[in-house]
Amino acid sequence: MGKQIKYMLDEDKIPKKWYNIQADLPTPLDPPINPKTKNPVEPEDLAPIFPMELIKQEISTDRWIPIPEEVREVYRLWRPTPLYRARRLEEALETPAKMYYNWEGVSPPGSHKPNTSVAQAYYNKKEGNEKITTETGAGQWGSALAFGTMLFGLDAEIYMVSASYDQKPYRKILMETWGANCYPSPSDRTESGREVLKGDPDSPGSLGVAISEAIEIAMKEETTKYALGSVLNYVLLHQTVQGLECKKQFEMIGDYPDHIFGCTGGGSNFAGLFLPFAGDKLRGESDINTAGHDVQDLKITHCEPASCPTLTKGLYLYDHGDAAGYTPYLKMHSLGHSFIPPPIHAGGLRYHGDAPILCKLQKEGVTDAVAFHQNETFKAAHTFAQAEGFVIAPETSHCAKAWIDEALKCKKTGEQKTLLMANSGHGHFDLGAYEAYHKGELIDYEYPKELAEKALAEAPDI
Amino acid sequence: MGKQIKYMLDEDKIPKKWYNIQADLPTPLDPPINPKTKNPVEPEDLAPIFPMELIKQEISTDRWIPIPEEVREVYRLWRPTPLYRARRLEEALETPAKMYYNWEGVSPPGSHKPNTSVAQAYYNKKEGNEKITTETGAGQWGSALAFGTMLFGLDAEIYMVSASYDQKPYRKILMETWGANCYPSPSDRTESGREVLKGDPDSPGSLGVAISEAIEIAMKEETTKYALGSVLNYVLLHQTVQGLECKKQFEMIGDYPDHIFGCTGGGSNFAGLFLPFAGDKLRGESDINTAGHDVQDLKITHCEPASCPTLTKGLYLYDHGDAAGYTPYLKMHSLGHSFIPPPIHAGGLRYHGDAPILCKLQKEGVTDAVAFHQNETFKAAHTFAQAEGFVIAPETSHCAKAWIDEALKCKKTGEQKTLLMANSGHGHFDLGAYEAYHKGELIDYEYPKELAEKALAEAPDI
Repeated sequence: MGKQIKYMLDEDKIPKKWYNIQADLPTPLDPPINPKTKNPVEPEDLAPIFPMELIKQEISTDRWIPIPEEVREVYRLWRPTPLYRARRLEEALETPAKMYYNWEGVSPPGSHKPNTSVAQAYYNKKEGNEKITTETGAGQWGSALAFGTMLFGLDAEIYMVSASYDQKPYRKILMETWGANCYPSPSDRTESGREVLKGDPDSPGSLGVAISEAIEIAMKEETTKYALGSVLNYVLLHQTVQGLECKKQFEMIGDYPDHIFGCTGGGSNFAGLFLPFAGDKLRGESDINTAGHDVQDLKITHCEPASCPTLTKGLYLYDHGDAAGYTPYLKMHSLGHSFIPPPIHAGGLRYHGDAPILCKLQKEGVTDAVAFHQNETFKAAHTFAQAEGFVIAPETSHCAKAWIDEALKCKKTGEQKTLLMANSGHGHFDLGAYEAYHKGELIDYEYPKELAEKALAEAPDI
Repeated sequence: MGKQIKYMLDEDKIPKKWYNIQADLPTPLDPPINPKTKNPVEPEDLAPIFPMELIKQEISTDRWIPIPEEVREVYRLWRPTPLYRARRLEEALETPAKMYYNWEGVSPPGSHKPNTSVAQAYYNKKEGNEKITTETGAGQWGSALAFGTMLFGLDAEIYMVSASYDQKPYRKILMETWGANCYPSPSDRTESGREVLKGDPDSPGSLGVAISEAIEIAMKEETTKYALGSVLNYVLLHQTVQGLECKKQFEMIGDYPDHIFGCTGGGSNFAGLFLPFAGDKLRGESDINTAGHDVQDLKITHCEPASCPTLTKGLYLYDHGDAAGYTPYLKMHSLGHSFIPPPIHAGGLRYHGDAPILCKLQKEGVTDAVAFHQNETFKAAHTFAQAEGFVIAPETSHCAKAWIDEALKCKKTGEQKTLLMANSGHGHFDLGAYEAYHKGELIDYEYPKELAEKALAEAPDI
């Protein structure tokens, strides 16, 4: 009784610098490749769609990148986020393990996404841009971008996959409440959209088409740029506020994780939490007292859907970053850029590849990965909700599963391991998925291996 | 720049006692009256449906009531809640006023309601009860009770107004995720339900019918009790953790409110925030340094819907606490217990009366009240969301309106008043109402005065 549950930091403990793991990688990242020239992409290739400061961050190997004071000001609305000790869950599982989770669900958009959308809006504003375009699937990223652009007085033009626009109105309303213009894609506002509508006036849309609409507008308009919510190095960089705060919280507790779990789609959320710890592992030392834990022994586990198993089944090669084939080739674990994963509820994990930084660390053996089916992840989320109260996103449920499994293993072995889970957001807009789980209607989709093999056959030979 | 936004307290600052304003009222509360005997209700009258400890709290005049350690343990999951300084909103309004709000939206159910549902579940468990029944309209209270009973290992049987059960599935799924059994009311599980269904098999239900179903089960089953989410003295008592924490936060800041705003339906949320300050006003002194503010000058303003204007248009008399006429007569501002308010989106403010404690304070001139139409309240909520990020509940929008109005008045007069708003919860399950507002489809209902007059004519002559 009377044991502390939440570990909070004062606002002045919001980090002043982001951590850039590129400084600590054993060998440099393989560069993105221009599909036309087959040469590495140059900063000027990216200048039409991204602000220069973000392009610089993308290729920087400086270990620390200052967080602008204006961005820290906005972070204050919800950061530092709490680190929770899941004492009720430990009791329910009867595990000797110490179970921790950070909690990004306290942000106004309800996830980790604004950690980068706010920064991207700031740099665009600073460089004189007036509008940002982006695409969004179920609307998680779109709503975070709407929030960020609103706070810096920018316009946002968001292309939302038409099927989701109709079926999932809540995040669209969020975007509009925050002042963004949200259009169902394909739209008649762009050539790419009109082209698709000519072939099928009732097209349900796809992320690929939405991306091309957003990029087309950014290319055409002088003071309009395009924003991405995952995969890129600078997106992962901005997310490291999570792990940097978390290290301070562990220092306060006098503990250090033995094992970190996170869900990985593009990978920005989990990267944000684990990269500062992975940096310790790579350098063989930590800037905080690790309470007797050897940083070299730290385990880091990606948790992904069995039906879209990029890190566990994908090939490590150069492939397009987007389904439509507009982006440069990125070196990553891919299921093929034309691979279409089954319609699982964890929409944020339906990406055919992973962030190049994460793939490099996976290849180097710094991290490992596991894959789960939907029903077992919702069962874990349900166990979590019944002990801790919070109803988490379907994406997050994937790492809840691995985290709980490990705690149960500790119950058998008696090990008092310190287990940390990346709790990326709430599931308030995903309760339909919980209902399907309660009713036994959730489908455990098989991994469509043939589809992936076919898609991979289209990968470029680089 | 760099100015603090959130004022947080450590977990060990969660209050150890609730504040009972009955100790400081100038004259005692008028007692609830047994409709049959016309005599004051005796504790034993209530024993079949409430645990004894809550009945004792209902009539206690002790100033401080200890919060059981087990309840504080659960509060730790989200309490103490943050006190925010709305610096971005101040800037947007260009007001010299200092605008503060507490934020109850961080609780797992997303509102202030678990402050009492957890306590009620605890006392029921302690007295050997195994199940709690209740009614719920849109599901806000039902989900909070499901959360509370789950954490103390009790069953919950919740009767949800049938129309809402079908139209608002999300809170029902929340209740089920937290292990409660939720039934559409009228149901065939009770005599009262079957009676209604006999007359109309497709009855959309009403709060009155749902209450009678819940009470019927509690009366019938030995170890089952009934729970209420507002109006009663002990519910307001449990909510005072809000105001007690808030006073500590003001002490930390070195400030004290000049004016407090809250939305009032039954009144439990706003009471929870303002009663500890009202106690200062009644006693003429505070236990904290008021930074030069005279506690006697403190203004406290109830904000209610113009279409259900209990405090601004109701009569102060004895009336039933529930629409169906099952409960004792309560002395309160009422529009008549059979009054049916127009279908505004702020479902939590559609109550025909107000908590007797609040009505007494209103009658004594300790508080005042204003009423607003839907569109102006959503406009205020939209202004709030665009400055502060958080999307608040339609109920809370009512006090956002008055708070912003007062800040704009300060802009004209140059007064640097300290204005505090009770921010009771998020609007994640109410985005449909925001969409209606954006589309200009919100109706500003007139106050159906004739209906109220007719309903009031039925009030008992006591």
